[in-house]
Amino acid sequence: MPQCKKCKFCLSPLTNFCAKLSQFKDPIIQQEVMEDKTSRFTCKGKPVYHFLGTSTFSQYTVVSDTNLAKIDDDANLERVCLLGCGFSTGYGAAINTAKVTPGSTCAIFGLGGVGLSALIGCKVAGASRIIAVDINSEKFAKAKALGATDCLNPRDLQKPVQEVIIDMTGGGVDFALDCAGGSEAMKAALDCTTVGWGSCTLIGVAIGDKGLTVSPIEILMGRTINGTLFGGCKGRDSIPKLVTDYKNKKFNLDALVTHTLPFDKINEAFDLMHQGKSIRTVLTF
Amino acid sequence: MPQCKKCKFCLSPLTNFCAKLSQFKDPIIQQEVMEDKTSRFTCKGKPVYHFLGTSTFSQYTVVSDTNLAKIDDDANLERVCLLGCGFSTGYGAAINTAKVTPGSTCAIFGLGGVGLSALIGCKVAGASRIIAVDINSEKFAKAKALGATDCLNPRDLQKPVQEVIIDMTGGGVDFALDCAGGSEAMKAALDCTTVGWGSCTLIGVAIGDKGLTVSPIEILMGRTINGTLFGGCKGRDSIPKLVTDYKNKKFNLDALVTHTLPFDKINEAFDLMHQGKSIRTVLTF
Repeated sequence: MPQCKKCKFCLSPLTNFCAKLSQFKDPIIQQEVMEDKTSRFTCKGKPVYHFLGTSTFSQYTVVSDTNLAKIDDDANLERVCLLGCGFSTGYGAAINTAKVTPGSTCAIFGLGGVGLSALIGCKVAGASRIIAVDINSEKFAKAKALGATDCLNPRDLQKPVQEVIIDMTGGGVDFALDCAGGSEAMKAALDCTTVGWGSCTLIGVAIGDKGLTVSPIEILMGRTINGTLFGGCKGRDSIPKLVTDYKNKKFNLDALVTHTLPFDKINEAFDLMHQGKSIRTVLTF
Repeated sequence: MPQCKKCKFCLSPLTNFCAKLSQFKDPIIQQEVMEDKTSRFTCKGKPVYHFLGTSTFSQYTVVSDTNLAKIDDDANLERVCLLGCGFSTGYGAAINTAKVTPGSTCAIFGLGGVGLSALIGCKVAGASRIIAVDINSEKFAKAKALGATDCLNPRDLQKPVQEVIIDMTGGGVDFALDCAGGSEAMKAALDCTTVGWGSCTLIGVAIGDKGLTVSPIEILMGRTINGTLFGGCKGRDSIPKLVTDYKNKKFNLDALVTHTLPFDKINEAFDLMHQGKSIRTVLTF
């Protein structure tokens, strides 16, 4: 997430958006070249493009000043590397976007790295009940270790998961966070929130996402839909603070790092991820 | 809007919802009988049902205590009657739900009584630019008199109204309020808000409404969708305060009352409404 510190978005406390993102058709897959429209990488004479403004699958990289944050020298790089993307996205979505309140009831859809980070965020914010939802029940042990009070696999249920959650909570949760993406998960996340003040925060985008169809009456009954990229964290201001929070043990990142592999096993790391066997694999050089 | 002052919703400052609404399948067209499941009206021996908990098209009515608000004795009934529904819905949506901020840019879709009330709310909140949108250009003179800075008729434009608004505002409005309802108006309202902090408040429901389909990326870019019934005003607590605000000239209701007719011309009043010739007709007994 760039932060130029000059545009109207960077100058506002309301958003972590930066006008630099607007120049890209797709702000998710963006910043494939530097400001001067060239890449700084080549392989066998051909250009290799930048990725998400950082291109960190490399011993050395070139990063625009708007994408660079200085962190404490003594930070544990094998853990704080997670703050560069997924952790901040999930944790920040709970803290900054949903603004989860103490004593509240939450539901989290999708228990990948971002979902588990959202779970950590809900726990740190003081949620008293956290319902974790995933179609892979193997994720539940970790979710419970991180603070989930209930775990639900929609494929094991006799009725739609949103109806089960409404029954369990006597009317729906205060906060739902969808880290899975896709029409079905987003709809379930919205539907399982309570009338009156239910908040549905969108965090995930599924490949080929068909969107969320909202009936206006669901909203008129007092529900809110919101969302952010990178958990509402301003790229350069927030990362150093999160590093300090981690050093001060405000949250733990160990549970998210399931594997550590040398860089030349990067494809093995991708396989583990695609097979749902890893949460995060840290690559070492 | 009932207010029992006992349920978890009434006890929360976050919502004007009341658990009494939950007993009705459709909270908009509801409360057709009293608590004991009977009607208090008959006509030629047949029951006539209550409407929206008040049934005010009558010289005398029976109202549940949860639907009754005491207002100042000296209030001008030919004006404050508007506070019982449409005015509070539009004005409250701007003030309580969208929370329009001073100096902000707003767009209002649909310039009926609710839309014009939302416009008054945006003006009172200090919006510096208010773009009023309707497919009936005859509404524009009144909208301008109430504070609209720009008026747009989507049928007169060469491209979608949301694109025109984005161009006019250099990226979109801070607040969009949809008082028209229907897929097209809701979509235009969401799309015309700025990335970063754009807020889209849903107020209207169209007959046969097909809903709003949202692409998650629109939300992830920092937009929020919210909405309320009755502008977030708690039925019994808010009405007396709005009456006092009206007496203190915080807002004027005169412009919304286009006709005053005796009660026996009620059907003429409906005709004027359906023909788009009236904003509000006050019926006198």
